[in-house]
Amino acid sequence: MAKAIKKRINSMWGGRFSSPSASTMEKINSSIAIDYRLANQDIRGSIAHVKMLLSQNIISKKVSENILKGLDTIAYEIEHGEFEFKVKLEDIHMNIESRLQDLIGEDAGFIHTARSRNDQVATDFRMWVRDSIDQLVPLISQNMVVFLDLAESNLDLAMPGFTHLQAAQPITFGHHMLAYVEMLSRDRERFLESRKRLNECPLGAAALAGTSFPINRFMTSEDLGFEKPMANSIDAVSDRDFALDFTSAASICATHLSRFAEELVIWSTEQFGFVKISESFSTGSSIMPQKQNPDAAELIRAKVAPISGALIALLTILKGLPLAYSKDLQEDKELVFKAHDNLLLVLNAMAEMLAEIKINKTAIQKSASLPFITATDLADYLVSNHKYSFRQAHHAVGNLVKEAEALGCDLRDLPLTSFKKIDPELNNKVLEVLSVDNSIKSRVSFGGTAPSQVKLRILDWRRKLM
Amino acid sequence: MAKAIKKRINSMWGGRFSSPSASTMEKINSSIAIDYRLANQDIRGSIAHVKMLLSQNIISKKVSENILKGLDTIAYEIEHGEFEFKVKLEDIHMNIESRLQDLIGEDAGFIHTARSRNDQVATDFRMWVRDSIDQLVPLISQNMVVFLDLAESNLDLAMPGFTHLQAAQPITFGHHMLAYVEMLSRDRERFLESRKRLNECPLGAAALAGTSFPINRFMTSEDLGFEKPMANSIDAVSDRDFALDFTSAASICATHLSRFAEELVIWSTEQFGFVKISESFSTGSSIMPQKQNPDAAELIRAKVAPISGALIALLTILKGLPLAYSKDLQEDKELVFKAHDNLLLVLNAMAEMLAEIKINKTAIQKSASLPFITATDLADYLVSNHKYSFRQAHHAVGNLVKEAEALGCDLRDLPLTSFKKIDPELNNKVLEVLSVDNSIKSRVSFGGTAPSQVKLRILDWRRKLM
Amino acid sequence: MAKAIKKRINSMWGGRFSSPSASTMEKINSSIAIDYRLANQDIRGSIAHVKMLLSQNIISKKVSENILKGLDTIAYEIEHGEFEFKVKLEDIHMNIESRLQDLIGEDAGFIHTARSRNDQVATDFRMWVRDSIDQLVPLISQNMVVFLDLAESNLDLAMPGFTHLQAAQPITFGHHMLAYVEMLSRDRERFLESRKRLNECPLGAAALAGTSFPINRFMTSEDLGFEKPMANSIDAVSDRDFALDFTSAASICATHLSRFAEELVIWSTEQFGFVKISESFSTGSSIMPQKQNPDAAELIRAKVAPISGALIALLTILKGLPLAYSKDLQEDKELVFKAHDNLLLVLNAMAEMLAEIKINKTAIQKSASLPFITATDLADYLVSNHKYSFRQAHHAVGNLVKEAEALGCDLRDLPLTSFKKIDPELNNKVLEVLSVDNSIKSRVSFGGTAPSQVKLRILDWRRKLM
Amino acid sequence: MAKAIKKRINSMWGGRFSSPSASTMEKINSSIAIDYRLANQDIRGSIAHVKMLLSQNIISKKVSENILKGLDTIAYEIEHGEFEFKVKLEDIHMNIESRLQDLIGEDAGFIHTARSRNDQVATDFRMWVRDSIDQLVPLISQNMVVFLDLAESNLDLAMPGFTHLQAAQPITFGHHMLAYVEMLSRDRERFLESRKRLNECPLGAAALAGTSFPINRFMTSEDLGFEKPMANSIDAVSDRDFALDFTSAASICATHLSRFAEELVIWSTEQFGFVKISESFSTGSSIMPQKQNPDAAELIRAKVAPISGALIALLTILKGLPLAYSKDLQEDKELVFKAHDNLLLVLNAMAEMLAEIKINKTAIQKSASLPFITATDLADYLVSNHKYSFRQAHHAVGNLVKEAEALGCDLRDLPLTSFKKIDPELNNKVLEVLSVDNSIKSRVSFGGTAPSQVKLRILDWRRKLM
Repeated sequence: MAKAIKKRINSMWGGRFSSPSASTMEKINSSIAIDYRLANQDIRGSIAHVKMLLSQNIISKKVSENILKGLDTIAYEIEHGEFEFKVKLEDIHMNIESRLQDLIGEDAGFIHTARSRNDQVATDFRMWVRDSIDQLVPLISQNMVVFLDLAESNLDLAMPGFTHLQAAQPITFGHHMLAYVEMLSRDRERFLESRKRLNECPLGAAALAGTSFPINRFMTSEDLGFEKPMANSIDAVSDRDFALDFTSAASICATHLSRFAEELVIWSTEQFGFVKISESFSTGSSIMPQKQNPDAAELIRAKVAPISGALIALLTILKGLPLAYSKDLQEDKELVFKAHDNLLLVLNAMAEMLAEIKINKTAIQKSASLPFITATDLADYLVSNHKYSFRQAHHAVGNLVKEAEALGCDLRDLPLTSFKKIDPELNNKVLEVLSVDNSIKSRVSFGGTAPSQVKLRILDWRRKLM
Repeated sequence: MAKAIKKRINSMWGGRFSSPSASTMEKINSSIAIDYRLANQDIRGSIAHVKMLLSQNIISKKVSENILKGLDTIAYEIEHGEFEFKVKLEDIHMNIESRLQDLIGEDAGFIHTARSRNDQVATDFRMWVRDSIDQLVPLISQNMVVFLDLAESNLDLAMPGFTHLQAAQPITFGHHMLAYVEMLSRDRERFLESRKRLNECPLGAAALAGTSFPINRFMTSEDLGFEKPMANSIDAVSDRDFALDFTSAASICATHLSRFAEELVIWSTEQFGFVKISESFSTGSSIMPQKQNPDAAELIRAKVAPISGALIALLTILKGLPLAYSKDLQEDKELVFKAHDNLLLVLNAMAEMLAEIKINKTAIQKSASLPFITATDLADYLVSNHKYSFRQAHHAVGNLVKEAEALGCDLRDLPLTSFKKIDPELNNKVLEVLSVDNSIKSRVSFGGTAPSQVKLRILDWRRKLM
Repeated sequence: MAKAIKKRINSMWGGRFSSPSASTMEKINSSIAIDYRLANQDIRGSIAHVKMLLSQNIISKKVSENILKGLDTIAYEIEHGEFEFKVKLEDIHMNIESRLQDLIGEDAGFIHTARSRNDQVATDFRMWVRDSIDQLVPLISQNMVVFLDLAESNLDLAMPGFTHLQAAQPITFGHHMLAYVEMLSRDRERFLESRKRLNECPLGAAALAGTSFPINRFMTSEDLGFEKPMANSIDAVSDRDFALDFTSAASICATHLSRFAEELVIWSTEQFGFVKISESFSTGSSIMPQKQNPDAAELIRAKVAPISGALIALLTILKGLPLAYSKDLQEDKELVFKAHDNLLLVLNAMAEMLAEIKINKTAIQKSASLPFITATDLADYLVSNHKYSFRQAHHAVGNLVKEAEALGCDLRDLPLTSFKKIDPELNNKVLEVLSVDNSIKSRVSFGGTAPSQVKLRILDWRRKLM
Repeated sequence: MAKAIKKRINSMWGGRFSSPSASTMEKINSSIAIDYRLANQDIRGSIAHVKMLLSQNIISKKVSENILKGLDTIAYEIEHGEFEFKVKLEDIHMNIESRLQDLIGEDAGFIHTARSRNDQVATDFRMWVRDSIDQLVPLISQNMVVFLDLAESNLDLAMPGFTHLQAAQPITFGHHMLAYVEMLSRDRERFLESRKRLNECPLGAAALAGTSFPINRFMTSEDLGFEKPMANSIDAVSDRDFALDFTSAASICATHLSRFAEELVIWSTEQFGFVKISESFSTGSSIMPQKQNPDAAELIRAKVAPISGALIALLTILKGLPLAYSKDLQEDKELVFKAHDNLLLVLNAMAEMLAEIKINKTAIQKSASLPFITATDLADYLVSNHKYSFRQAHHAVGNLVKEAEALGCDLRDLPLTSFKKIDPELNNKVLEVLSVDNSIKSRVSFGGTAPSQVKLRILDWRRKLM
C-alpha cells in the first residue's frame, strides 16, 4: 500500500490535485527566492520539533535519528553553498523537506507530524526577527558609543544651537551629540521590547487549531529559546504583530539617523564647513573633478524611506485580513528582510563614517559667535537682576537687536548708552553676559548645555553602556 | 521705561519685528484651531512651572499668586466655553498667556521665565498623549472583556476554522474570539510601553539649551506626573518619538480591529449568515427598503487607514529634519489627535456593537460540518495508529477526498471499502475520527481549540483582567 | 394612507428598522461634520436631477417647482449661515432632503426618485474635486509666474549649482528658478488630466444597477458640466480613482514645493545667507529676541506629509474592497478635503512669500566663486583643445585640485607651471576658462544655464502662460 | 604625460582622491546589484550619444567606431550572460565604461565627453520606465479582454449586486465584469499619460548646467525615441516625477486588481460558491489534505501593498530634497523595479487565472433570488404607477419587508392583502415586479444592468479594443 502512495509524494500538498501549477502561478506563488534566508531557523525549528516528537513517543528513535542526521547534512550543504534551492518546491520548508526525503527516504515523511507550514513559518520567522534584533541592538549600542566619543572629545566646543536652522543659542558640540545618544537609547529599548513581545513560540499551533497528537509545546518553546508557547493557536498562525513592531522600531531608528545624516549633509557644505566626511565615505563626480560628495550621509538619509515604506506595506497587507492564515502573509518576509538589510547597512555606515569624520572646530566656533546668538542671555539677565518680567525683557532686547541690525553690528558692539536706554543701571557687565562662553557655562539646568552638565550625562551613559 | 515697552507687548515674539504677518501666513502658521485641545495640559504645565519658579525664588509670591489665580480663571472659562480662541494669537500657548495678561496685567509677563514654547509644547503634547493612552487602555481592556464574554458564551460552538477563507478544520467560536483577546492584550502592552517611554518631562529644556535660571526640573517633572526630566535639552524639544510610538501602536490596534470587522462583514452576508449586527449599529439604504447594512463594521475596517496614514505622515515630517525644533513639528498634533479620535471611536464602536450582536449558532454549526473539514483528523489518525508517516497519510487522504468529490459526497459517506484500500485494518472507527465534535475535542495541545483548553485560557484572562 | 406613512418618514432609510441608532453609532456613522462641504455640489446636483425628472415626465411640474424653490431657499440659508446641520441626519444629503421636507412638505419625497445616495454622493464628490482643481490650477500657474519673475530679475546672477549640496558648477539663479517652473507645469498637466478623467457623471447609476425610470443621464451629465455619463453603473458608485488621482497629483505638487522650501530654509541660514524671507512670512521666538524664523518655508516643507499620508490612506481604504459601494468609502472625503486645504494653503503661501523675498545677490555671487567650481570647465577645455579623452582630462584636473588644496588655494591661483605639467602648450587662456562668468556663458546647450538659453526659456514660458 | 595619468584611471571619479572606499561604503554606495537592469538602456543611450558626438565633430570617426564596436561587444556579452558585473565599479554605467576600456583602451575615455552620470542615469531610467509601460499596457488590455470575455459569456446571468456586501439589487454577472473593464481602461490611460509626460530626454543636461560642447540634444532625443529634450538641465537631472507617476499608476491599477481578488476569495468560499479557481492557480495544504486554496487571488490582493509602499517611499525620498542631484535618488530604482515586477506578475496572474476560472451559474443565480432583493423595484413601481413620492414608497415597502421577515418569507410570498394595505389598487402585477428577471431587464438606463445595456457596452469595448 505504502508503495502505491510513495510514487505520488512529489509535494507537500498535492494529494488531491490533478493538474500541475501554471508557470505564472509558480512565479507568483514561489517564495524560495526570498525565504531561503529562513533556512537556518527552519532547521533549528525542525530539530527541536523532532526531538520533542521522540520525547513524546510520537515518532520512533530510529526515525528521529535519521531525520536529525539528514537535517545535519542539509545544514552543512546550505552553509557550504552546496544546496540547490528549487523554485518548483515553492518555499524553504518544502525545499528542505524534499531534500530530506532524497537523503533519508520514507522517514522524512514523519517530520511534519503534528505541525503545519502555518506554525512552522511563523516560528521560523519569529526566530529570524529575533536573530535580527540580536544583531541590530549591539550595533545601536556601538553607534551610541561613537556619538559618546564625539561628545567627549568635543565636550566644550561651542557651536550654534539651531532652531528653524537659525542660530538660536550657543550650545556645545558634545551636547548636540548626546541628543542622538538619547534617541538611540530609545531605539534600543524599542527593539528589546519587540523582542520580548515576539518571544512566544507558535510551534504546535499546527494549521490553526492545535493538534490531537500528545505534543509538548513547552519543550519546543524552551528548546528554541522562547519564553513560552503562544496561548492561542489561531493567533499563533495569523499574527504578524512582530513584523509590524520590528519595522516600526526600524523606521523610527532610521528616522533618527536620517536627521543626523541631514545635518551632516548641511554641515559638509562649503558654506557651513563644520565637518568633513572622510574620502572613504565620499565619492567623486564622473564629470566634476573637484567634487567630494557626502554620499554615505545622503544614502543614510534616504534609507528611512524604503524602511517606512515596508512598514506601511505590512499594515496594508494586514488591513482587513480575515483569520487565520491567508496567503497574503507570504509578502511579509521580503519587506522585513529588506528593512533589516537597510537598517543594518545604515547603522554600520553611520558608526564607521563617524569614526573617521573630521570636525572643523574653527568653523564651528566661528558660527557660534554669530551676532545676536546670546540675546536670550541678555533678556534672562534683565529678568534675574532688574525686575523685568520676561516678556518685557524679551521686547526690550528685541528692540536692541533691531537697533544693532540697523547699524550692522552685534549686540556686543552697541554703545553702553543703548543698553542704558533700557535700564540706566546696566553697565559693562552686559558684555560678559553676551559672551558665548559664559552663555554656555551658565546653562546648568539638568540636561542643559553647560559642559559640567554634558560631562555628567556622558558619565551616566558610559556607566550604562559598560 | 516699562511703560514704553508695554505698548509694544502685543505678542510673544514680536519685539524685533516691524511688519505684521501676512494673512496667508496667519492661516498656515496659526495652529489654534488644532491645539486648543492642549488647553488643559497647558494650564497644568504652567501651574507646575509657576509653583516651581516661586519655590526657587525666581519669581515673587505676589506674582505667582496672581498668575495662578489668572490661570484658574482661564481654566474655568475654557471649561465653560467662555474662552475666546483667537487665530491671530497663533496657538494655545499665546492665547492663554495673552488672556492672562488681560486678566492680571504686567505680572503675566513673568510666566515665561526660564521656559520657551519649545519645551512648553513638548510638555503639553506628552501629557496629552499620556492622557489619551490613559483613556484608550481601559477601553482596550473593555474590548478584551467583550471578546471574553463572547468566547465564554460560545465556548464549544463548533465553527469552521478558516485558512485562505476556506474551511480548514473545525474550531470553536470561543477559540476564535480568544485570538482577538491575545491581539488586544499586545495592543495594551504596546500602549503602556509607549506611556512609560514618553513619561519624561521636557519642561526646563527652554528653547533647546537649558537655562541659567536656577530651576528645579525634578520638581516640575514630579508635579506633572512624569518619571523624571529628560536628560538632554536638545532632544527634549526636538523629539517626537512619543507621537510615532503612539500612532504606531494605534495603527496596529486598529489593524486588529479591522481584521475582525472584515470577518463581521463577511459573516453578516446572507451566504454566511453567521452573525447579525443589531439595528442600532446598522443603517438602511436610501433607495433599497430591505437593506440592513453592517456600517459600523465597515467603518471600523476603514478607520485603520487614516490612522496608519497619520503614522506615515509623521515619519515623513521627521525624515531628515535637523535638530532642534523646526516649525515642521507643528503638523504633528493634528495627526496624533485624529489618530486618537479615530481609535477611540472604533474601540467604542466595536465593544458596543459586539455587546448587541446576534450569533446565529445554527448557521455556524452547519458550516462547521462542511464536507472534508475533518480530513486532517483522518490523516493524523492514520499516523497515530497505523504507522504511516504524515506525508503518506496526507496523500492517502488526499486521494480519498478526490474520490468523494467525484462521487459528490463527504468522506463520512464513502463506503468502508474505500478506506480499506488505504489500510485493510481501518474500520468504522474512522467515522468517529471524522466527527466534527470529536475533532474539536481532540485538539488539546496547549492553546488548541478543544473546549477544555479554551476554558483554561478564559480563566487565565479573567484572572488577569480582574 | 399617505398619512399613516407620513409620520414614519423621519429618515431616508428607516422604513424597516425598529430600533434607533446607538449614540456611538451616530458618532462613527455621521459624516455631516465633514461632508457639509458638499452642500453646494449637492444642491446643484439635485437641481439638475429634478429638472431632468420633469423633462422626462417622471415628476409633475408642480412638484418640481416646489422642490426647486425649496432648494433655492436651502442654498440661501447655507450661504448665509442660517442652515442648521444636524448630526442625527447623518450626512449632507439627508440634512438637505430633511430641510426640504420642512419647507415644502410631502413633495420633498419625490426628489429621490431614480437616484440613490450612492450615485448622489459620487456625483457631488466628483464635482467638488473638479471645483478644487479649478481653484488649484490657476494658483499653480500663479506660482509659475512668480518663479518666472524671479528667474527674469535674476537672469544672469551667478550662483553655485549644487549636487549633493556641494557646489558643483556655476549656474544662474534664473536657471535654478526655471527648474521649478518645469515641475509646476507638470503638476498643472497632471491635475488637468485628472480633471478630464473624472469628468464623467455617475448620476443615474442609482444604488448600483441603474434604474427602470425613463431617466436621461445625458441631460443631467451635460447640465452639470460633465463630458458624459459613466458607462457602468457599478463602477459609477464604487470608483474612487478620481480621489486617488487627485491626492497623487497633490502629493507630487507638494513634494516639488517642499524641495524649494528646503532650499529656502538652507539659504536663509546665516551660513548661506542667500535669501531673507520677509517678516510677514517669518515668526520670532517666544524666548530668543533676535530670532526671525523661516516658518512659512518650514510649514510648506512639512505639509507634503499629511497630503501623501492622505494618498496612502485612500489606497489602504480601497485595497481589497469588494464592489459596489461599501461604507468604508465614507472615509474618503475628509482625506481629500484635507489634501485640498493643505495644498491650497502651501500654494498661496509659496507665491506670496516669494513675492516678498529678498535675494542677497552679493552672498550668492560670492558662493558662486568658491574654489574649484569651474574645474569641469578646465577638463572640458583640455578635451576640446588638446586631444585628451574626457577621462584623462578629468584625472589630470583632479590632480591639480589635489595640488591646489594642499597649497590652500584655488585652481586659478596655481602657477602656470602646474598647468604646463599637464600640457606644455597650456597658457594664460586657462584663467579665462576658469572664470565663473565664462563658465556660465559657455553652457549654451539647449536647456543649459547660459543666460542666453535661460532668456529663451523664459520667453517660451511667458508665451505659454499668457 | 598621458601615460602618467593612464595608470591612475581606475575609476570615473577618483582623480582627486587619496583613500579608497571603506567596505561598508562600497556596500551602501554600490547599486550594481539593482541597476544592472539598466544595461540595455545604458548601451542604447551611449550609442546615441556617441553618434551625436561624431556628427557634431566632437570626437573623431575612429574613436566613435571603436566605441560603438566595443559597446556592441558588451551588449552581446550581457545578453549572453558573459558580462561580469563588479560591485567595486559601483553601478551599471561604470561597469560598462570600465569594460569598454578593457576592450578598446584609451578611446573609451571619450565616451563621457559632454555628459555626466547625472543625465546618463536619468536618461536610462526614463527609457526603462518607458519600456516597462510598453510592456504593461498591452497586458492591461489583455486583462480587459479577459473581463470582456467573461462579461459576454455571462451576459444575462443573474447575480446579487452587493452594496456593503449585502445583496442589494439583482444585476448580471456580465455587468459586474464590465465594471473592471472601466477601471482597467482608466489604468491604461493613466500609464499612457505618464509615458507621454516622461518622454522628454535629459541627455545633454550633463551634471546639472548643460555643457559648452556643441552638442545636439535634439538629435539624441529623437534617436532615443523621445519627443524632445528636457527644457531645463537642472530639472533634467533632479526630476523623478516619472517614477512617482509610474508607481502611482501602478498602485491604482493594483488596487483595482486587489478588489476583484478579494471578491474571488469571498466567492470561492464554500458559503458563496460562486466560482472555483482552477487547480493550476490554487495550492493545497501541507497538513489538510482536502484544501484547495485561492492562493493566486490572495497574492494578487496582497501585492498592492509593496507597490503602494514603493510609492510612499519614493515620495518620502523626494520630500525636501534640494536640487539638483543628490545621492538619495539612488534608492529610486529598486522601488520602481519592484513595483514593475509585482504589477507585471499580478496582471499576468489575473489574466491567466480568469481564463481558467469556473463560474458556478447555479449558485450565483440562487443567490440572486435571495429574499427582498427586488424590494426597490416594488418601491419604484409604487412611484411610477401610484403617485407616491419615492420616500413614501420606500417606507411602505420597508414595512412590508418587516412583515415578511416576521413571517419568515419573501415579499413574493406575502398575501395580496398585505400589498393592498399600502394601496388597494395593487394586484398580482406586483409579483412580476418582484421577479428577478424582470428587475434586471427593467434597468435600461444608460450604463444600467439590463442585458440590452450590457450588450451595447460590450460592443463599444470590443470596437475600442480591436
